[in-house]
Amino acid sequence: MTITPPALSVFESLESEVRSYCRGWPAVFDRAQGSRIHDEDGHSYLDFFSGAGALNYGHNNPVLKRALLDYLERDGITHGLDMSTTAKRAFLTTFQEVVLRPRDLDYKVMFPGPTGTNAVEAALKLARKAKGREAIVSFTNAFHGMSLGSLAVTGNAFKRAGAGIPLVHGTPMPFDHYLDGRVPDFLWFERLLEDQGSGLNQPAAVIVETIQGEGGINVARAEWLRGLAELCKRRDMLLIVDDIQMGCGRTGPFFSFEEAGIVPDIVTLSKSISGYGLPMSLTLFKPELDLWEPGEHNGTFRGNNPAFVTATAALDTYWADGQMEKQTLARGEQIEAALRDIVREHPRSGVEFRGRGLVWGLEFTDKQRAAAVCARAFELGMLLETSGPESEVVKLLPALTISPDELDEGLRTLARAVRETA
Amino acid sequence: MTITPPALSVFESLESEVRSYCRGWPAVFDRAQGSRIHDEDGHSYLDFFSGAGALNYGHNNPVLKRALLDYLERDGITHGLDMSTTAKRAFLTTFQEVVLRPRDLDYKVMFPGPTGTNAVEAALKLARKAKGREAIVSFTNAFHGMSLGSLAVTGNAFKRAGAGIPLVHGTPMPFDHYLDGRVPDFLWFERLLEDQGSGLNQPAAVIVETIQGEGGINVARAEWLRGLAELCKRRDMLLIVDDIQMGCGRTGPFFSFEEAGIVPDIVTLSKSISGYGLPMSLTLFKPELDLWEPGEHNGTFRGNNPAFVTATAALDTYWADGQMEKQTLARGEQIEAALRDIVREHPRSGVEFRGRGLVWGLEFTDKQRAAAVCARAFELGMLLETSGPESEVVKLLPALTISPDELDEGLRTLARAVRETA
Amino acid sequence: MTITPPALSVFESLESEVRSYCRGWPAVFDRAQGSRIHDEDGHSYLDFFSGAGALNYGHNNPVLKRALLDYLERDGITHGLDMSTTAKRAFLTTFQEVVLRPRDLDYKVMFPGPTGTNAVEAALKLARKAKGREAIVSFTNAFHGMSLGSLAVTGNAFKRAGAGIPLVHGTPMPFDHYLDGRVPDFLWFERLLEDQGSGLNQPAAVIVETIQGEGGINVARAEWLRGLAELCKRRDMLLIVDDIQMGCGRTGPFFSFEEAGIVPDIVTLSKSISGYGLPMSLTLFKPELDLWEPGEHNGTFRGNNPAFVTATAALDTYWADGQMEKQTLARGEQIEAALRDIVREHPRSGVEFRGRGLVWGLEFTDKQRAAAVCARAFELGMLLETSGPESEVVKLLPALTISPDELDEGLRTLARAVRETA
Amino acid sequence: MTITPPALSVFESLESEVRSYCRGWPAVFDRAQGSRIHDEDGHSYLDFFSGAGALNYGHNNPVLKRALLDYLERDGITHGLDMSTTAKRAFLTTFQEVVLRPRDLDYKVMFPGPTGTNAVEAALKLARKAKGREAIVSFTNAFHGMSLGSLAVTGNAFKRAGAGIPLVHGTPMPFDHYLDGRVPDFLWFERLLEDQGSGLNQPAAVIVETIQGEGGINVARAEWLRGLAELCKRRDMLLIVDDIQMGCGRTGPFFSFEEAGIVPDIVTLSKSISGYGLPMSLTLFKPELDLWEPGEHNGTFRGNNPAFVTATAALDTYWADGQMEKQTLARGEQIEAALRDIVREHPRSGVEFRGRGLVWGLEFTDKQRAAAVCARAFELGMLLETSGPESEVVKLLPALTISPDELDEGLRTLARAVRETA
Repeated sequence: MTITPPALSVFESLESEVRSYCRGWPAVFDRAQGSRIHDEDGHSYLDFFSGAGALNYGHNNPVLKRALLDYLERDGITHGLDMSTTAKRAFLTTFQEVVLRPRDLDYKVMFPGPTGTNAVEAALKLARKAKGREAIVSFTNAFHGMSLGSLAVTGNAFKRAGAGIPLVHGTPMPFDHYLDGRVPDFLWFERLLEDQGSGLNQPAAVIVETIQGEGGINVARAEWLRGLAELCKRRDMLLIVDDIQMGCGRTGPFFSFEEAGIVPDIVTLSKSISGYGLPMSLTLFKPELDLWEPGEHNGTFRGNNPAFVTATAALDTYWADGQMEKQTLARGEQIEAALRDIVREHPRSGVEFRGRGLVWGLEFTDKQRAAAVCARAFELGMLLETSGPESEVVKLLPALTISPDELDEGLRTLARAVRETA
Repeated sequence: MTITPPALSVFESLESEVRSYCRGWPAVFDRAQGSRIHDEDGHSYLDFFSGAGALNYGHNNPVLKRALLDYLERDGITHGLDMSTTAKRAFLTTFQEVVLRPRDLDYKVMFPGPTGTNAVEAALKLARKAKGREAIVSFTNAFHGMSLGSLAVTGNAFKRAGAGIPLVHGTPMPFDHYLDGRVPDFLWFERLLEDQGSGLNQPAAVIVETIQGEGGINVARAEWLRGLAELCKRRDMLLIVDDIQMGCGRTGPFFSFEEAGIVPDIVTLSKSISGYGLPMSLTLFKPELDLWEPGEHNGTFRGNNPAFVTATAALDTYWADGQMEKQTLARGEQIEAALRDIVREHPRSGVEFRGRGLVWGLEFTDKQRAAAVCARAFELGMLLETSGPESEVVKLLPALTISPDELDEGLRTLARAVRETA
Repeated sequence: MTITPPALSVFESLESEVRSYCRGWPAVFDRAQGSRIHDEDGHSYLDFFSGAGALNYGHNNPVLKRALLDYLERDGITHGLDMSTTAKRAFLTTFQEVVLRPRDLDYKVMFPGPTGTNAVEAALKLARKAKGREAIVSFTNAFHGMSLGSLAVTGNAFKRAGAGIPLVHGTPMPFDHYLDGRVPDFLWFERLLEDQGSGLNQPAAVIVETIQGEGGINVARAEWLRGLAELCKRRDMLLIVDDIQMGCGRTGPFFSFEEAGIVPDIVTLSKSISGYGLPMSLTLFKPELDLWEPGEHNGTFRGNNPAFVTATAALDTYWADGQMEKQTLARGEQIEAALRDIVREHPRSGVEFRGRGLVWGLEFTDKQRAAAVCARAFELGMLLETSGPESEVVKLLPALTISPDELDEGLRTLARAVRETA
Repeated sequence: MTITPPALSVFESLESEVRSYCRGWPAVFDRAQGSRIHDEDGHSYLDFFSGAGALNYGHNNPVLKRALLDYLERDGITHGLDMSTTAKRAFLTTFQEVVLRPRDLDYKVMFPGPTGTNAVEAALKLARKAKGREAIVSFTNAFHGMSLGSLAVTGNAFKRAGAGIPLVHGTPMPFDHYLDGRVPDFLWFERLLEDQGSGLNQPAAVIVETIQGEGGINVARAEWLRGLAELCKRRDMLLIVDDIQMGCGRTGPFFSFEEAGIVPDIVTLSKSISGYGLPMSLTLFKPELDLWEPGEHNGTFRGNNPAFVTATAALDTYWADGQMEKQTLARGEQIEAALRDIVREHPRSGVEFRGRGLVWGLEFTDKQRAAAVCARAFELGMLLETSGPESEVVKLLPALTISPDELDEGLRTLARAVRETA
């Protein structure tokens, strides 16, 4: 029988049973810096989860920290109302100059509320308004959020059941690699669209992740994404790329869809956009889609000024040139090599890997094993999480700023954890 | 014709048309302290809006600021993942000791995501799960948020239309004072419930604001709230009080429902719970309703640690004794007297007032006038907003920490603005 | 313990448990003529239910019978496809000349399928198409049918639960006399409509029965109906009168809404329109609402030709002059007098009556009593049914062609059954 | 310019624009016998449409006619209330003895209302009740009816749009032969079911036609049907076969699913079940699914007694032995041979045929051609209709009782019409 350490009993007695990440990591965390996080008992952990991708620049990144402290110290505006502020203007200008213009992207910026699901809700509203239709197509194993609009286009049955109402207006289509590998891409989707008797309500939009993070690190090929973009255009559907987890450089380029050379109609960003773990989200869309009436979508924390400050510092520091992208791809090769070794080391073990940039997954045929690997890694001083519909995938999300040595350390710990759970 | 000052053109060209508050206040704000906010051109404004109620302790409250700076300087955990942290534990413990226990409230605490609408979505999910029913009863002119679940129980037709799908599963009932004043409270609601042929789907829950902020500062009487609580109990419906705008002391006591002596089954808190304008929300519920499975509702920014730090400091500083409540009620009397004078001064003007604690509304029969008053107040150096279905109410939401002199100054400015728009 | 007569065992073993009317009348019926129905064991019953109002001209009315036999004998078209036929043309012409033109009603005639619920489904589709809105307002205790569209505007909770999905897009409003008698008509409804913050989705249409048959013989006053019609006009909602049970002369005039002097936008007719118990329905609407595309609503049995034949004969025989209406009102007075006597005879019994023309209800405070009265009446050789949300009302629906003597006999039997169940 | 014959002007001025079949056949029909139908101007037509499959035994079949006339003459019960009657008992007994028992089918019989869509609505309600789930899987190009429940599982976009509300709770899957012929059967469907992250709401039931009549005479292979039945069993979904158009012997055996050797959980029958074109429907289900409460689904015309009389006569006459099935299959071969000749005659014409028993389709790549063929056939004295999502298929539905000579005559006329529209 396990004796609950006193440190955790507060959470158990006061907090709801809904809490989740804390269960896999039985420690009370206190401080963190870069890729290291420390609990109150003095243990230190190498963080390969990065706040579910919210900390691409590491914990308490010193450049962002300095900017934030300066802002707070000089009594900058801290609330989130959508007033015009100097912090918001600086962010808008920097985002335009550092991110949009160099990529030739002409997007209007909407602050839809500071969480990912706010951004998705706004994207879906706008798509429905623009097209005058209710239906949205999403993909198998998609994850877009927990509020009812986003949940209706999310795949996970357990989370969907939490809605307490039947989730409607969404239809799933097969994500890349979902079927047997022999069915032509979009065969089914296109047939449904072209056939006036198919029974599919004509969709307003398609929402897609280029790599499904929660869904199990499922990587769409660039040509699949191009095929999807082309289908959307041909069949008058808006293309929404949910880049909440994969954007902000996670896969290499700032936007994960850049590699495919597509230009979505609507893009959602969150998680690492503030760069400091502070809640912030963006919904971007082509200017001709800016059909909102003033205040048609609102909320108290849409203009999270402290987050604008760190976001601006992050863009200025990391995205003014192409260094970050190159570094991420290099680090990605380091991971890929290590994962290949792990797979090679366990030839009969039913283990596969996939990923891009600094997001990778290690999938186990023995589905329980993934959780065991993460648990063992924790004991060895490392934070790792699972993903996938049955938590069968170990998910690697180190900070983009991780050093080669830290990365190497983590990958060795992972290899050991895999070995020791065999 | 107005010439747009260059300062605003960035917002106009880069940000979506959906922006709203910034339109009424054509200035670029930079710093703020207490009840004063400053734009970049050196103008100063007395803030009677307080970030829509998110700044009950004023801008950059020095006690909270100190705590936040200390936390950030020492590299406390900043991300929002729902791990166990020392900051979260301190908040949970303080909330328990300062807020719940003294009021004999036995609630489990859920961190549903950092915005109000996240909290409402979680409340509705839980109610539906607990009762196994889909229908929710809300009230005329309710405002509960912009994501699809919350929007379905929100009254405003303009915002509802933004959904792009028919909003269902919600049925409005008349809020207190809604009808002609002669219809017995809950006559219609109770009849629908008791009649097996009424056509009302049996509700899982009722969601109510004790004072409707966005709806026009509509104040429910304590006896009406008690009647509602009793009806919920008798008819097996959960009672959800959305205390997002009216909680955290806005009406005097910490929870706005305390005056009525009721104990809701579920309570939502947000806006001023962090005390510093940082995104944070709580969903509270009776322990027997803690039916969540781990992770059944999740999200990246649920555990906004910097917000926990300022929230803890705010509770410790302002709520350890009963002083704040007394002071709020005293300041409220100051407002009431001033509003009475304004109404007296304009006997034929169709102006009425209502409110409690530090939330008040001044309603104009000539509905355009409310916006004119706010515009004039802005010119006179004061931030005021309208509310109500046709923006016919000037809404007063000063910081709870406003000084009597500042309050007096603001009320004189208001009186002048009313006079000058006559 | 009851021994099931062998005659009924076939039904019990082969037919679904959903069967209902047959349970209250444990006999196997074989023949019928006028107001008399005979079972296979030679018992005869006076029919005060008339096939739930489908037999306004009595069983096997000889004039209609002759027309039907002639048609069948000469191999007239019997199927129901919506081809042009001589039988349909005769019906359309007669309906125009005998019913519509004399009442100055300019309606297009749609054959929506042969049952009441088909007619309601078509009416709701058309209203939604015409207004481009989804919401429909119905009334407490309304009954409009069992298919999903109609069921969503039906009040009965037991029947609604049968849908197996949440029924949405309908909102109930209080029927006449529903509240305490002191609330002004439409106070709540109109307030919801005029208030942009009420939360009511703007309705496409209102659907109403002038007398709610299944709902408990609830009689709307003419002025209430006029108020409703006026409200619909003022607030841009279509008015649908579901005259399926109360039309075809049941209340006196051909359409039950004639007395109120209103002209609905859409009218549904069924039950007695064929006059012979054969399935047939009409959806009538103003010409400007004839927005259907060819075949947009279809079905195999829309053009039930044998029913057209009896319908035409019925109109020619009974509605060419005003005799039927006068006779119905006279018979109604006979019922009213008898019911008044019954109430007078049981002063402490909690019994009330209400009705008009030849539809009357006797309501018992002791709700079980209504079923007991019907059961006793059956033993005494008379068919009577209950209605109301808790089956608390004995419903009188004799044929319009009943003779004064038969009516008197039935009313005496009823009085005896009431007496013997005291 | 066409001059409308006066005969049709009544329909044009009085009847709604929704009328459809009458538009393709500009004649006023008056009498019919067997496979011949006559208009009022003395023209005679060979009927290859049979009331959309409602007249499998031909027009005014003399045996059924005699039974019906006898019943009406002796004043049998004509109304449709669900009382126990001798006519209903005779039908139930005969259906049991002639249809169910010889096929070893243990079904309870429900009279859900007299139209096909009533039967489907009841089937869907029951499935949802039995499984406690809302979702239903239907197939591309399915047709199940026009009321909202049935329409939600119907494929045709034009008819779906008529609903005026978004149709939800249904998800289409590919019917047999729908994709490229290389995708394994049910690959997509099964993957969705087995994957907890697929986003498909777990279905209560699957509803399928063995041959899609309205959808374009799409014939499911027996092995595909068996695969579907097996999948339903394995994944805990009820299998509903909608046999409304294909049942009652249209494909050879009484039920169209007999050939595949499957036993659906629920079966709907209508159209030819009365045998005389009179409205009548059945919903059949396994005894363990008889979960209805008395009266949970009701309606006025559920017990259409005259239809029971002809239905009983039809079963007794045609189904007491296996002759009808053999004859249908023989006639089917006659059609197949003729269609093969037509296709052979037009090698470059883009014409294909498919079918079984006495339901066949001739599909034209030049989609307009199908309507042209039907129009020319009408001029040549023959009734033919199109089907398919773009009306690209000529549909052959002769009476099962058609003589070889009549069939030959019709097939020659068809061949001529094809030739003359080339």
